[in-house]
Amino acid sequence: MDLLPHLDPSSQTPLYRQLCGCFERQIASGELATGERLPATRELAGLLGVNRTTVSAAYELLEQKGLIAGHVGRGSFVARRSATAQVDWSNLLARPARQFAVNPAAISFAASRPPEELFPVEDFQQSCEEVLGSGNLGSILQLGSPGGYEPLRNYLLEQARREDAMGPDDDLLITSGCQQALDLLRRALVRPGARVAVEDPIYPGLKNILLEGGARLVNYQKGLEQIAVLTPNFQNPTGLTMPLAERESVLREARDKATVVIENDIYSALRYAGNPLPSLKQLAPQAGTALIRSFSKIAFPGLRLGWVIGPRPLITALRETKQLTDLHSDQFSQAVMLRFAESGRLAAHQSKMVEAGRERLQAALNAAERFLPSGSTWTRPEGGLNFWVTLPEGLDAGQLLGRAQREGVSYLPGEVFRVELPQHHSLRVSFGGARPEQITRGIEILGRVFRAESELQKQAEREPAAAWV
Amino acid sequence: MDLLPHLDPSSQTPLYRQLCGCFERQIASGELATGERLPATRELAGLLGVNRTTVSAAYELLEQKGLIAGHVGRGSFVARRSATAQVDWSNLLARPARQFAVNPAAISFAASRPPEELFPVEDFQQSCEEVLGSGNLGSILQLGSPGGYEPLRNYLLEQARREDAMGPDDDLLITSGCQQALDLLRRALVRPGARVAVEDPIYPGLKNILLEGGARLVNYQKGLEQIAVLTPNFQNPTGLTMPLAERESVLREARDKATVVIENDIYSALRYAGNPLPSLKQLAPQAGTALIRSFSKIAFPGLRLGWVIGPRPLITALRETKQLTDLHSDQFSQAVMLRFAESGRLAAHQSKMVEAGRERLQAALNAAERFLPSGSTWTRPEGGLNFWVTLPEGLDAGQLLGRAQREGVSYLPGEVFRVELPQHHSLRVSFGGARPEQITRGIEILGRVFRAESELQKQAEREPAAAWV
Repeated sequence: MDLLPHLDPSSQTPLYRQLCGCFERQIASGELATGERLPATRELAGLLGVNRTTVSAAYELLEQKGLIAGHVGRGSFVARRSATAQVDWSNLLARPARQFAVNPAAISFAASRPPEELFPVEDFQQSCEEVLGSGNLGSILQLGSPGGYEPLRNYLLEQARREDAMGPDDDLLITSGCQQALDLLRRALVRPGARVAVEDPIYPGLKNILLEGGARLVNYQKGLEQIAVLTPNFQNPTGLTMPLAERESVLREARDKATVVIENDIYSALRYAGNPLPSLKQLAPQAGTALIRSFSKIAFPGLRLGWVIGPRPLITALRETKQLTDLHSDQFSQAVMLRFAESGRLAAHQSKMVEAGRERLQAALNAAERFLPSGSTWTRPEGGLNFWVTLPEGLDAGQLLGRAQREGVSYLPGEVFRVELPQHHSLRVSFGGARPEQITRGIEILGRVFRAESELQKQAEREPAAAWV
Repeated sequence: MDLLPHLDPSSQTPLYRQLCGCFERQIASGELATGERLPATRELAGLLGVNRTTVSAAYELLEQKGLIAGHVGRGSFVARRSATAQVDWSNLLARPARQFAVNPAAISFAASRPPEELFPVEDFQQSCEEVLGSGNLGSILQLGSPGGYEPLRNYLLEQARREDAMGPDDDLLITSGCQQALDLLRRALVRPGARVAVEDPIYPGLKNILLEGGARLVNYQKGLEQIAVLTPNFQNPTGLTMPLAERESVLREARDKATVVIENDIYSALRYAGNPLPSLKQLAPQAGTALIRSFSKIAFPGLRLGWVIGPRPLITALRETKQLTDLHSDQFSQAVMLRFAESGRLAAHQSKMVEAGRERLQAALNAAERFLPSGSTWTRPEGGLNFWVTLPEGLDAGQLLGRAQREGVSYLPGEVFRVELPQHHSLRVSFGGARPEQITRGIEILGRVFRAESELQKQAEREPAAAWV
């Protein structure tokens, strides 16, 4: 032992525990190797200027923890680590479907999120202060209801009724964002082996949660199943909108098959062009549709607040599952969001977000036109935060991601969103979080990376490898 | 149709949608019966003073929704409701284990929660304002990390290291309260049919989540299994503390069997008497223990913030599951709680909570001594928010709950907490949320209800029913 343990007499941690901790760290780091002898208690007590019982207590604790072993007359030695039966984590853990993470990049097109530089900080502060001064803070900070903070729930119910987005037998549950709504719906509705109809490609947060539950995913266009999950407005990842006629035919098919349609409607408020279409829920409020909405895309994703509207038996089951999952959602954030909404600040912010989104989408589409290699195609969404690019044959968006990231631009490759159809040539460009000039610059860089690869491939075709001649 | 629909021209909802909504409500309520004829469009337009196309559009929408059917030349009629194929919810829904809910009562001993009249509202406001003025609000409101808000995570890591409650290979995940920590651990670790060792009786939020996952629960005192969930400090519902010698023997057995011990340690900071005991995690930081802690019992349950410390492979799996579940916990509350803690306000509040808890526990135990019927026994916890009463043979706490509630006092009957052993005669008294005088009064009322029943039964024994003579 080269270094004396450093003890702090003014700490709240007793000296013997501090000493024990020092040895633990030295054993963990290998400074003290297996079999090495610890100083005698009397000797160490003298060196440290502490009572000998302090050292003895520390050694006793180390021995209890299986880190050292004492031999009468010979002293204490660092024990073999294998004295602790090791848990075999790799065998024990049921790992969920792997998430896909990209490295941070200067210009990120990887996450579908709103631009944080437009967050109305002052309006948010104002809403907070109104809640803090409301006299209700005690009950807001107390244990709440699994259904949600009742004043917010009533506000959302009223809004849904006004918008005709609620059947007479429907109820509403507040969730920790759209992701939790999907998770609860899966837990309540999807049994292992069940077939679930979805779009192809789809949002990986939905794909992974269904796969974790043992579902089999099928393209809804081949026919609806008992459960269908659809995003009619500005779908993630494609940005596409389901036309009215298709909405109606989906509802007819759902009615015939008694399909439960889960309508993911978190982007609809972000429409930049064209006329709003009624949601599936609005078209048939009495059908078994579960409508998911959220504040994340139109306001603050950091607050984690969404909601589900659906038939009462379904909402009751979701509420029971929600209680098991996390008792209820954060009440302070619910109260602040309610003030933000009912004060009109949310509506004002939303208009700004629509304006900003329109400008960003336009920048993205213009840049795609100018910079993407010829033969590329892309969607032209009327709203939302994403669009979908398909590169010419031969260009693999997954393989090219590393090169793009080295140039400072990130995105999610198409395979992440894949259900049945291969998506090697495609990528999702999430333009929402970037500023217009970043979008232009980012797509310019992507265009350069993609065109360079395309040129290389054309050259390789023109000049076959000599070895084969 | 007796009543004309009421339309609001100043509303943002178009008139035809308002009209459609009126009819929908009348059809749903039965005011408009199946087969009933709707007024002709021209006639209704005249009565309402609106354009005829408005009425036509409303009827078209009603027809689309399958609520009415039009017959050329004859008009529109309320359609048969069965035109919509009904979803069979009772068959479709995987219902979780039923939650137990008691009606609100004047004096509630039903929820294990801190007293909200002691919430330090000004300190909380101060913490909020510091976060609002910090200049970090933009990133706090933006999409965050599944692991938790990094500054709070670092604060908790530092605290765990200082308290020796963390092994060298451990990591930490922030969760939406202890309940979510249990849910994530179950999802990551427990496969259907797995045996899980638990205390008997246990917290129903734990019991139900394990049962929902298909686990089989066994008493840990009969032997540990691959997974064990234990609450060594002030267990819920009994309030009991596991002695040091038992902690050590549990750890020895866990080491021999490579058991993953999940240590639920959310009450330990609320110690009112006796000396603190080291947690299982502190006794053996290198074992496979997962330590759950939370701000709910020592600060604000409404904020939903807990955390898990455990071996890195486990925390990685939990983080991936957390991302599927709800992406991440609310970041604003995490930031506010961090300020509340690092400013020293949490420690100050905690001291007050310990003082208040001591007083409440004392009131509860004194009242139990004075008022419970002879032959009752109860635990004498050294901390926490609950104690456990067992009534004399013949008194069923579940059956007596209704009577107690009519007298204005609620509690949870013992069967709710049952694992293997019957708990008919027992009840949990959660004294934390009530004021001392309420506690005394509440237990006095319970004593009266229980003694009255006891007297009735004794009388019945002394005077056998005449029919049998």
